[in-house]
Amino acid sequence: MKNVRIGVIGFGSMGTKHAANIQGEHIKGATLTAILVKRVEQAKTFEENSGEKIKVFTDEDAFFNSGSVDAVIIATPHYFHSGLAIKAFEHGLHVLCEKPAGVYTKQVREMNEASKKSEKIFSMMFNQRTNPLYQKVKDLIQSGDLGEIRRINWIITNSYRSQSYYDSASWRATWAGEGGGVLINQCSHQLDLWQWVTGMMPSRLRAFCHFGKYRNIEVEDDVTAYLEYENGATGVFISTTGEAPGTNRLEISGDQGKIVVENGGLTFWRLRISEPEFNLEFKGGFGEPEYWKIDVPIGGTTTGHPGIIQNFVDAITMESALLAPGEEGIQSLALSNAMQLSTWLDNWVEFPIDENLYYEKLQEKIVDLQDNNYI
Amino acid sequence: MKNVRIGVIGFGSMGTKHAANIQGEHIKGATLTAILVKRVEQAKTFEENSGEKIKVFTDEDAFFNSGSVDAVIIATPHYFHSGLAIKAFEHGLHVLCEKPAGVYTKQVREMNEASKKSEKIFSMMFNQRTNPLYQKVKDLIQSGDLGEIRRINWIITNSYRSQSYYDSASWRATWAGEGGGVLINQCSHQLDLWQWVTGMMPSRLRAFCHFGKYRNIEVEDDVTAYLEYENGATGVFISTTGEAPGTNRLEISGDQGKIVVENGGLTFWRLRISEPEFNLEFKGGFGEPEYWKIDVPIGGTTTGHPGIIQNFVDAITMESALLAPGEEGIQSLALSNAMQLSTWLDNWVEFPIDENLYYEKLQEKIVDLQDNNYI
Repeated sequence: MKNVRIGVIGFGSMGTKHAANIQGEHIKGATLTAILVKRVEQAKTFEENSGEKIKVFTDEDAFFNSGSVDAVIIATPHYFHSGLAIKAFEHGLHVLCEKPAGVYTKQVREMNEASKKSEKIFSMMFNQRTNPLYQKVKDLIQSGDLGEIRRINWIITNSYRSQSYYDSASWRATWAGEGGGVLINQCSHQLDLWQWVTGMMPSRLRAFCHFGKYRNIEVEDDVTAYLEYENGATGVFISTTGEAPGTNRLEISGDQGKIVVENGGLTFWRLRISEPEFNLEFKGGFGEPEYWKIDVPIGGTTTGHPGIIQNFVDAITMESALLAPGEEGIQSLALSNAMQLSTWLDNWVEFPIDENLYYEKLQEKIVDLQDNNYI
Repeated sequence: MKNVRIGVIGFGSMGTKHAANIQGEHIKGATLTAILVKRVEQAKTFEENSGEKIKVFTDEDAFFNSGSVDAVIIATPHYFHSGLAIKAFEHGLHVLCEKPAGVYTKQVREMNEASKKSEKIFSMMFNQRTNPLYQKVKDLIQSGDLGEIRRINWIITNSYRSQSYYDSASWRATWAGEGGGVLINQCSHQLDLWQWVTGMMPSRLRAFCHFGKYRNIEVEDDVTAYLEYENGATGVFISTTGEAPGTNRLEISGDQGKIVVENGGLTFWRLRISEPEFNLEFKGGFGEPEYWKIDVPIGGTTTGHPGIIQNFVDAITMESALLAPGEEGIQSLALSNAMQLSTWLDNWVEFPIDENLYYEKLQEKIVDLQDNNYI
């Protein structure tokens, strides 16, 4: 088994963590061989603190042409994800990309095309997919235990952020710096889990974003979205960074019962016979199907970021199946883009979303606000 | 203290219950003296089973001109509520009206005007207002403990109804018979509590009703509504009769914490200092206000229908304050009408709603469906 030489691109809080995980030998079969940073001071500090084995680059082309890495972990600001991934694929490198996949789906589709062409391993840092709770939810749905999905409700309002957080970096919560707020930053994991556990993308949605409602920021900090699916299912996704204390409660109803994930536990109310079957047979007026309340046992532990990095490395060295294939990053981004677009248009957005229209509208936001001297 | 002579109008399942409560001496200061039924067979059966003290009328005018009642309880199909109440006020009678107040607000506004003119006691049968749980929620909001309301979420999907239920009476779940489905029938209590506990009506809403989605019925059996308030608060109201087992979970966030009512209990997560104050003072980047989780004690019992009837009688005899003043019935109906109208228009509905437009659209439904031989 060969040792995968990894280069980390971007050295903010996430890049530093990923590098430390590899250096700390938490990942089997991988070595940190290079980092690429934009700011020289950061590079110098890191060089001083690390051994000579790690090459520090500040020049993108020098990094990609160095031949010192087999794979990269991209942990830059969101806007740079897709472009760097495409460059990496062109240089024959495997890619593990931080979430979100990018800021707009047009960009991410191009990244996915480059990945396909390269035939290299491509993974997304959806570390919450390593949480056994959500793995079990996916299991109950994909195995058919829950039956046909009818309703998905996620109230995910527990990512409180004060003004102080937003003021801590100028790129935060700006159209130019992040391309969105609670949807693209705090919720990209939940939007990924939403489509991953259900295995469904909506046919259309109607969303209501509020921009800078609770904080002095440009982007959305309060969202309610209503989604419709081809099989008739509906969904409501609610998030904000402005409430305390928040809630994290996922409820999914199917025609064989109901799942609720809350307070770290998973409860399954399982119908003895499916609801449509009961409805067909029951003749008594008032009455409802018998159900059993089950506290579903959750095994295993959340391996988080190191788990995703290990899975990525194993996919390279042992052809293991990816937990978070890179091509899937476009799904949660499409949900997020659609929610903003629906608000801007004050109308429905159909899937697949109009990626050019979204791109155009996003550019208007950036320009408008530059004119207003917000950024 | 005089004894209030009560006449019950309409003798279906609710009218029978109310009559039995008065006859059974569960109500102090009131006597059942008359009933008005449309169908002669029902009247005969009741006459045979009851003493001679109770006069049974099948003719509306004879009933109202008989001088045998001081007050009426109206428990007919919804469409007749307002007209009968107006007639009762014109005859100088006090009125306790079953929910909903009517089918469309135009009709109910006229009832409210007649009530005002008559100066008689007017109450609505909002028996869930007697539930100490919701009284406590109202208390926590009106006292300012929860602070300014930011979000209201009610998932109320636990009124399962099979096809067998809908088939049990021809008027059920028809535009002509009920003028709506889960909103006007199963949820009129929750829509009343929604506005009663908060003391707020929305400025606009956008709703998504599905008509005959799970059952062979004309009206809505699945609803998701998004509401916006003048103070910036938002709300989501979700209901259906097609899911099993359902959920009944009310969450209200304020700037001093959060309330959740679920499984018969009330939990209050109380912030030590208000969220806006924390946000203003906190300079640490990540961090959130301290909260205390409080299991709020709930005293008293739900007195239900007899409680509302007693309160109505006490208002007549002792000038007690009404728990559910009749004029307030228009609020929940306006919410329900607005949710249907928003779906029909596929657009926002502003408050106060356009009562003529709603009436017009409702008539279209009735006509269309009669032509289709559904009713």
